[in-house]
Amino acid sequence: MSDKKAILVIGAGDATGSAIARRFAREGYIACMTRRQVDKLAPVVEEIKAAGGDAYAFGTDARKEEEMVALIEQIERDIAPIEVAVFNIGANVQFSITETTARVYFKVWEMACFGGFLMGREVAKAMLPRGRGTIIFTGATASLRGRAGYAAFSGAKHGLRALAQSMARELWPKGIHVAHPIIDGAIDTEFIQSNFPQRYALKEQDGIVNPNSIAEAYYQIHMQPRNAWTHETELRPWMEAW
Amino acid sequence: MSDKKAILVIGAGDATGSAIARRFAREGYIACMTRRQVDKLAPVVEEIKAAGGDAYAFGTDARKEEEMVALIEQIERDIAPIEVAVFNIGANVQFSITETTARVYFKVWEMACFGGFLMGREVAKAMLPRGRGTIIFTGATASLRGRAGYAAFSGAKHGLRALAQSMARELWPKGIHVAHPIIDGAIDTEFIQSNFPQRYALKEQDGIVNPNSIAEAYYQIHMQPRNAWTHETELRPWMEAW
Amino acid sequence: MSDKKAILVIGAGDATGSAIARRFAREGYIACMTRRQVDKLAPVVEEIKAAGGDAYAFGTDARKEEEMVALIEQIERDIAPIEVAVFNIGANVQFSITETTARVYFKVWEMACFGGFLMGREVAKAMLPRGRGTIIFTGATASLRGRAGYAAFSGAKHGLRALAQSMARELWPKGIHVAHPIIDGAIDTEFIQSNFPQRYALKEQDGIVNPNSIAEAYYQIHMQPRNAWTHETELRPWMEAW
Amino acid sequence: MSDKKAILVIGAGDATGSAIARRFAREGYIACMTRRQVDKLAPVVEEIKAAGGDAYAFGTDARKEEEMVALIEQIERDIAPIEVAVFNIGANVQFSITETTARVYFKVWEMACFGGFLMGREVAKAMLPRGRGTIIFTGATASLRGRAGYAAFSGAKHGLRALAQSMARELWPKGIHVAHPIIDGAIDTEFIQSNFPQRYALKEQDGIVNPNSIAEAYYQIHMQPRNAWTHETELRPWMEAW
Repeated sequence: MSDKKAILVIGAGDATGSAIARRFAREGYIACMTRRQVDKLAPVVEEIKAAGGDAYAFGTDARKEEEMVALIEQIERDIAPIEVAVFNIGANVQFSITETTARVYFKVWEMACFGGFLMGREVAKAMLPRGRGTIIFTGATASLRGRAGYAAFSGAKHGLRALAQSMARELWPKGIHVAHPIIDGAIDTEFIQSNFPQRYALKEQDGIVNPNSIAEAYYQIHMQPRNAWTHETELRPWMEAW
Repeated sequence: MSDKKAILVIGAGDATGSAIARRFAREGYIACMTRRQVDKLAPVVEEIKAAGGDAYAFGTDARKEEEMVALIEQIERDIAPIEVAVFNIGANVQFSITETTARVYFKVWEMACFGGFLMGREVAKAMLPRGRGTIIFTGATASLRGRAGYAAFSGAKHGLRALAQSMARELWPKGIHVAHPIIDGAIDTEFIQSNFPQRYALKEQDGIVNPNSIAEAYYQIHMQPRNAWTHETELRPWMEAW
Repeated sequence: MSDKKAILVIGAGDATGSAIARRFAREGYIACMTRRQVDKLAPVVEEIKAAGGDAYAFGTDARKEEEMVALIEQIERDIAPIEVAVFNIGANVQFSITETTARVYFKVWEMACFGGFLMGREVAKAMLPRGRGTIIFTGATASLRGRAGYAAFSGAKHGLRALAQSMARELWPKGIHVAHPIIDGAIDTEFIQSNFPQRYALKEQDGIVNPNSIAEAYYQIHMQPRNAWTHETELRPWMEAW
Repeated sequence: MSDKKAILVIGAGDATGSAIARRFAREGYIACMTRRQVDKLAPVVEEIKAAGGDAYAFGTDARKEEEMVALIEQIERDIAPIEVAVFNIGANVQFSITETTARVYFKVWEMACFGGFLMGREVAKAMLPRGRGTIIFTGATASLRGRAGYAAFSGAKHGLRALAQSMARELWPKGIHVAHPIIDGAIDTEFIQSNFPQRYALKEQDGIVNPNSIAEAYYQIHMQPRNAWTHETELRPWMEAW
């Protein structure tokens, strides 16, 4: 087992999650990433290794308690202590309230909030005896406001925010830095490119968030001295209306 | 079928829910109340009837979609149109994050948030064709802040707040008044009396919230003219630290 | 001297302030109103008297400490104890930041915030020995958010909100109910009628706030039992986007 | 005139302001600092120069419009374009509401809010033609909540927050990054050392904020790419209750 430290990224999509993994890998952290379609993680694993880093891909279903418990045990036992954990699963769907099925309402919460609880609790268990570590939950505009059509999504994101805040108040005094940065704007992802081409066109003017900017902000949060920790902060493009 | 209107109270405990039912019944609303132990509703049903009102008790499990759908259909079909619906189920538990089981985290959300979604959606369906009605979700301090030890409870209450806000933004312009009053303080309940006797002793100085005060505030919200509706408001005792 | 009680309304324009004075006068309060152009208060004084109430008009400049001190002393000495005080002066101006003169920035604060401080402090002095009373500061959307072009106005309203909150935390436990209702929407005033005719046209659909609705809400706040007081609440038309 | 850029720090005390000036000077910015007792700036000017940087001290009264206009003109004309401006004047006083004199209420606002307006407006005028620059207003816990005894201080800080938010919404789309970091905790200053020795003793456990941590955070805010700017963020010690 290495004497290095690991970063765990739950929900490592092509954009934000991968960027975070690469950013921390550059500093020597072993990147442990999960994604339901684990095959899609091959390129970022390769990229990190090509750059001299180390990375592992897992197909863990973040909604399944046994899988999450096993994942974190395995990393702690076989790879390295988890120094940083990032929960990055969103589930941005839009339905009028009467069109929101119970299944959708539950699934969105299960993915975007319950999975965060499982990650947060399990990494807290691993970090507490060491009295150190950073746990970051990615927030969104919907973490703060419930817009029409977003009962499910904003419900999950509000719940995740409550989790982050509750954990921060409990775990900061035990040395664990829990943070909740809010990304308030479209991120440069394939999803935005395909579904909101006009929005995506703002990229040339820096009108959408670059995943590398998020990764940099997360790294800075992790590096803060404990006399001045940030819990909540926000990132949005200069052109964004808010 | 009566030409009267119904109020539906989901989670009609001895304190707040019953007080709300009695307050509206006094104005002629037929009180339809749910409680898991339906037998315990007998006294309040009797009390309302003795005062000349009308009331019904249901043992509906608010977490079960079919039961909630059936309940609301039944009231609308057999009793009266639901003019007011109040979601009043809490689930105030306290555990450190590492002691919070997945089961507890889920159950608290299912009761205090998912049940609210089911009620909100189903009564919205009934009210929308009429273009009128009031839907009230009871909030708490935990709706606004995630305290240490309250990841589950504040997660559910934050989710409920997001639901209320999202529904308000969608349904106000369709004539339905969705509100989210926040009760910030201990309420005069058996639970407080048994578990927090020192707190309960403040009752003599009006230091805990009287359920009738909540009921009155809810009735006033329902009576507001639509040129000046309240979405979020707060109620707390004069002595409360906040 | 009467054994009645007085309500003091600082900034009693034709709309909100007058409506509040009338509402409380109807309940037997002696309405004491201030307005810079004191002559314009003649109709509301007359109206209140015609309805069997009692009212006084003052030309007090709310920004002048000596005038405010003298006014409150005079009412307490010659008319009746002030049971309710409402601060209702706004100063809604819009300028880009570079076009905002120091004079404007100061004047807006002096009117909409400093005047509130003078009223709040002086009525608190009168109410504290009695251990009772209600002090209401009228808030606006700008109390919560600083929009582009509203540095001066939102600065004053944010300051007034801080005053209300600070006073509430200090004075509630001494029996004085300090509240800060936020009116989030256009009010039915001559100003809106003249300057925003399209907005004003929404009046027919209840799309702008009726001053009488505000007056009713303020009266209800004053009547709350002290086991369930409201500090902040919000009023907006059903059609308002927020 | 140098081809360098200047940072302007209004209110450069021994702790935070000086730390910010040193941090930016290290990156090549010419540090322009103001302090009412200008002599006290001699050590930091010397220190910056000894480290190979450049620095200027001014005795400008930040509450005087002519002085602020002249200061910014002089720097822009004779020293270097202002790339970064930081407003750092606080005025933390505590009085019960009835003991708060009009003079104190005004003076606190004049120093901690009006001075910020003057700085913000004047540097905006200088930055707008260049379409770039960073303006930072230092916030505090009192920016968010009005505690008992803090009507004056929280009023000023709320007003400053409204200014920052209003300017951000107007100036971000013109390329100027306006930010409002909130320092939520005691800072390592002589004031805390003298007046709150028990609090100060927490320094050994990183229980009070190190001014260099604030300086680092401000530098990072300034360096953010415009696709991911922060407006509001917060810094507090790991041990702080919140």
